[in-house]
Amino acid sequence: MLGFRGFYRSVTTPLHHHVLSKHGISTTIVAHKKVAVVLSGCGVFDGSEVHEASACLVHLSRGGAEVAMFAPDMEQMHVVDHTKGEPMDQKRNVLVESARIARGKIEKLSDLQAENFDAVVFPGGFGAAKNLSDFAVNGADCSVQADVENILKDFHSSKKPIGLCCIAPVLAAKILKGCEVTVGSDKEEGGKWPYAGTAAAINSMGGKHVCKQVTEAHVDSKNKIVTTPAYMCETAVHEIYDGIGSMIQNVLKLVED
Amino acid sequence: MLGFRGFYRSVTTPLHHHVLSKHGISTTIVAHKKVAVVLSGCGVFDGSEVHEASACLVHLSRGGAEVAMFAPDMEQMHVVDHTKGEPMDQKRNVLVESARIARGKIEKLSDLQAENFDAVVFPGGFGAAKNLSDFAVNGADCSVQADVENILKDFHSSKKPIGLCCIAPVLAAKILKGCEVTVGSDKEEGGKWPYAGTAAAINSMGGKHVCKQVTEAHVDSKNKIVTTPAYMCETAVHEIYDGIGSMIQNVLKLVED
Repeated sequence: MLGFRGFYRSVTTPLHHHVLSKHGISTTIVAHKKVAVVLSGCGVFDGSEVHEASACLVHLSRGGAEVAMFAPDMEQMHVVDHTKGEPMDQKRNVLVESARIARGKIEKLSDLQAENFDAVVFPGGFGAAKNLSDFAVNGADCSVQADVENILKDFHSSKKPIGLCCIAPVLAAKILKGCEVTVGSDKEEGGKWPYAGTAAAINSMGGKHVCKQVTEAHVDSKNKIVTTPAYMCETAVHEIYDGIGSMIQNVLKLVED
Repeated sequence: MLGFRGFYRSVTTPLHHHVLSKHGISTTIVAHKKVAVVLSGCGVFDGSEVHEASACLVHLSRGGAEVAMFAPDMEQMHVVDHTKGEPMDQKRNVLVESARIARGKIEKLSDLQAENFDAVVFPGGFGAAKNLSDFAVNGADCSVQADVENILKDFHSSKKPIGLCCIAPVLAAKILKGCEVTVGSDKEEGGKWPYAGTAAAINSMGGKHVCKQVTEAHVDSKNKIVTTPAYMCETAVHEIYDGIGSMIQNVLKLVED
């Protein structure tokens, strides 16, 4: 009874390429856009935010992408009891917990090669700031996990789009100097944007923060980086879903360019 | 940095009721549909399927519902390493793990009172068959967790709608004799419906199985029970999302009736 074997198959909107076979016959190959999704655990306070990760996958699926998921095979910074917001005395592995979102279909982040994909997407959640980097502890002085740093540099130098949401844009700001990203507003606006200070941290790391609403995405066309605020905003979950939809649609559009 | 305080606020499509205050002045009260969502952990193989749970919440949010989440405060049947599909030597609590989906805003299932809600929704995942019941072990001879049994009986006798997806419809079939539910097809169809045998188990428990496609919901109008196959089907995640959308829209419509 453990075999829920569902995975994220691409069923719509494939790209069609006409190629010549070695016998000179024109053949139609259905070439899906291949997108890597990088997870950081399972749960907003110590891993990937599950609704953000799920929204990324739903929109990628609807957009016809072929998705593979990855996470670092390493211990989480800590495990948070989500009923209390306090650490628990337990150890969990980022890859193993991320597999809960991936329904078992997940690979080690160290095996992710930019050459095999058309784009990469990073959902948010504190996992991006605790496991993929130490931004939650060190802010603008953070370091980024080595595989994540290499992946960002490789996709960027290959001119392949990078999508990030929520707190994950800090990873791009730290590694890809001068890039434009959004984490929403740079003002708290009465509690609507509780992490508004992140905008200043992005600027001090060498990025350029751009203010956006939660249902919008910002596209840095030059760097092919697409970001959306997601749960940096205190709002209804369907608005999170819609903002991520905008991010994913723009990532897939940049693949076409 | 633990304070992601987002929760599922209702922002759209409220019902408006005009009532007379004690001074005889007509006052507009915005009355949201209040929906309880029952979780069973976090992860398809030992808890709530996260994409099903998330889709329920997105569609409820878009439909203007005010949502509260609940889970039993009890140990999980077991903990499954989702990279291997095998049990791990660890204990986890259903309420604590469900809080990962609920972003911390969750209550004990024993505190859920039908009188405080207009409807109740059960996402799927093996948690419904391992923690909310023992269907995964005992099939048609299963027993249902006591709080779940009371909740199903209370919402049903109050003529308040009940939505269930994936494997969760077995809970209704076991407790509410004669009700109509779907878990998709009763035939495997070459691996598309790997759990097709569940349809026969539903009939032998006293329910009536109705075949449906994954993007459809079945509405038992008499019993106000709405079901959709979700991950009983091997398909793309956006189709799971759409089927759950149909389920939730029908649940909310039955509240209006």
